Amino acid sequence: MLPAALDAYVTAAGHLGNASALHAHGRGARRLVEEARESVAADLGCRPSEVIFTGGGTESDNLAVKGMFWGRRDADPRRRRVIVSEIEHHAVLDAADWLGRHEGAVIDRLPVDGRGRINADVLAGILRESADEVALITAMWANNEVGTLQPISEMSALSAEYGVPLHTDAIQAIGQVPVDFTASGATALTVTGHKLGGPAGVGALLLGRDVPVTPILHGGGQERDVRSGTLDVPGIVAFATALHIAVTEQDALARRLTVLRDDLIARVREAVPCAVLNGCTEARLPGNAHFSFPGCEGDAILMLLDAAGIQAATGSACNAGVAQPSHVLLAMGATGDTASSTLRFSLGHTSTAEDVDALVAALPTAVERARAAAAT
Amino acid sequence: MLPAALDAYVTAAGHLGNASALHAHGRGARRLVEEARESVAADLGCRPSEVIFTGGGTESDNLAVKGMFWGRRDADPRRRRVIVSEIEHHAVLDAADWLGRHEGAVIDRLPVDGRGRINADVLAGILRESADEVALITAMWANNEVGTLQPISEMSALSAEYGVPLHTDAIQAIGQVPVDFTASGATALTVTGHKLGGPAGVGALLLGRDVPVTPILHGGGQERDVRSGTLDVPGIVAFATALHIAVTEQDALARRLTVLRDDLIARVREAVPCAVLNGCTEARLPGNAHFSFPGCEGDAILMLLDAAGIQAATGSACNAGVAQPSHVLLAMGATGDTASSTLRFSLGHTSTAEDVDALVAALPTAVERARAAAAT
Repeated sequence: MLPAALDAYVTAAGHLGNASALHAHGRGARRLVEEARESVAADLGCRPSEVIFTGGGTESDNLAVKGMFWGRRDADPRRRRVIVSEIEHHAVLDAADWLGRHEGAVIDRLPVDGRGRINADVLAGILRESADEVALITAMWANNEVGTLQPISEMSALSAEYGVPLHTDAIQAIGQVPVDFTASGATALTVTGHKLGGPAGVGALLLGRDVPVTPILHGGGQERDVRSGTLDVPGIVAFATALHIAVTEQDALARRLTVLRDDLIARVREAVPCAVLNGCTEARLPGNAHFSFPGCEGDAILMLLDAAGIQAATGSACNAGVAQPSHVLLAMGATGDTASSTLRFSLGHTSTAEDVDALVAALPTAVERARAAAAT
Repeated sequence: MLPAALDAYVTAAGHLGNASALHAHGRGARRLVEEARESVAADLGCRPSEVIFTGGGTESDNLAVKGMFWGRRDADPRRRRVIVSEIEHHAVLDAADWLGRHEGAVIDRLPVDGRGRINADVLAGILRESADEVALITAMWANNEVGTLQPISEMSALSAEYGVPLHTDAIQAIGQVPVDFTASGATALTVTGHKLGGPAGVGALLLGRDVPVTPILHGGGQERDVRSGTLDVPGIVAFATALHIAVTEQDALARRLTVLRDDLIARVREAVPCAVLNGCTEARLPGNAHFSFPGCEGDAILMLLDAAGIQAATGSACNAGVAQPSHVLLAMGATGDTASSTLRFSLGHTSTAEDVDALVAALPTAVERARAAAAT
């Protein structure tokens, strides 16, 4: 958590009131929330009334996918289709799958190419055939594993053309590439705090005013009656603070990380010639480097690097411990063996050239040992 | 927020890892979460595996009511009834109403008597008639407006006798009266942080291991696959810290508040003879005093007291701003006029005899002015 975000949390925690209560402390808390809402709106290119504070990315994704499905289907029972890209985070994929299993939704998967990029032509084809049966489209702004940036403007143009709402999970994109909600043409957008140096357990769904959404959390009616629950005032203030820093520093950070990341990729390839870079060369998050190491288990390399003080990730962290090949790599056409041989190196605001040096120094031995372990 | 809880938050925020990630920082964060889980379990009389961390009370209530409804109905389609007391928080009431409107549930309301106490005989009658059609019972431990403690052991005995799960929202009770999950016989129990001097946006649902519950937040599969979402490690640690203090100090606090509260009641009655105490004399939260002031608007008295630096509440805070008489008072048999003439004074760990003095000094003038305003 960024020191400025933590400071903002601590300061706001001094304001004791419930943001919905009428008395003076309550009004003070409310003011902090509304200032945070205006700050988030300014940073992400939307109106303050389009910011729905939530308990984080998973909740925002579930609210968008389930809430927009129910809202659109209840208005017109023909709208039962949910178009989901194959490389979404599990918070989107599993929410959609549940709608399919439990609520009568029909799930259409949008495939990706070998670089992990969604094929907008397939989306156009589905909409041409059956737009009036589609409740929503959900497709992330940038993939969290291989870092591929997605064709959001092509997809939002199709969303507008056919009058079908588009939700995008922009968790990985914000702070790394420019994200402007209104300019993007998306109907709903997920953002969360903890990927930006803010607190976990706080996020937002940006949501157009006129989009019918059924709540998933009913109750006191906070947040436009779309999301109930006592507002986490210090968390919201800290989230807005972290987001503002991330957006303000995005351009400089992206330039710095791109250089660092390209250096990392070149030197990993040199140090471990068998390493295969996954994802897209040009349309890629600046902080993402993702490799396959044929003949190795990604988990084994990860453990060996961890022992050397270097943190990497296999699959997405949310599924760590579950021994399954990444659905993203499989969607990109990898075999199960290749998919389980991958490792992601993420660079962020604290990353330095020394971190890259340390990785390049430790990696060849780790890969060699992991390969020997896999061969026995 | 209690200083100890805030300190715990700040310290834990220094541990950077994602609690589900495999690397060393991730494992450290995981350890903090599991220690917090053990602490919560010890303080509330359950097993650590029965603690599901959530984003707060509203989410816990929605998860219990919707999740248990879907879980039980999916296992046996006859189970469509949801038995709900009339005095639940809106997070429970509105979740149940949505199930009725949207998901084919049949809602049975449990009435309360004039003191705000649920009639367990009515529950027994419904279960005798149609237990095999009931998905769940939900009834709070103590009411948040009038402070009446509910017959949890009678209701859990019926729950056990008929094999129908019982959810109880114990948000108001914890820290004020002893709460032991296993001893209570409840199947699921809601607790939240911010009512205990902990952070908002963190809570838990205590939930027996074998209870089928459909998640409302799908995704990474954290929290026994019942609740997905990146864990808010600092928030969870701070929540466990505040809960531990609240439970440890409960007995002494209850004794002190009972004396203070009884003094407040006696002196308010003396200073404003028309004041009517609502709720139950004996089975009442130690920190709750709730009055009607006939001929006045509660909101008017509240504003006048606020100007004198005294915080009170009308209805429940979550509905402040919405000009509706309290559903709790109406369920207790009050007319709309009487219900809108009420005011709650809550006492907590920071309350002192001087606070009571200040209230008793300011109240007669406030009531007189409010009555004059209402008469014009």
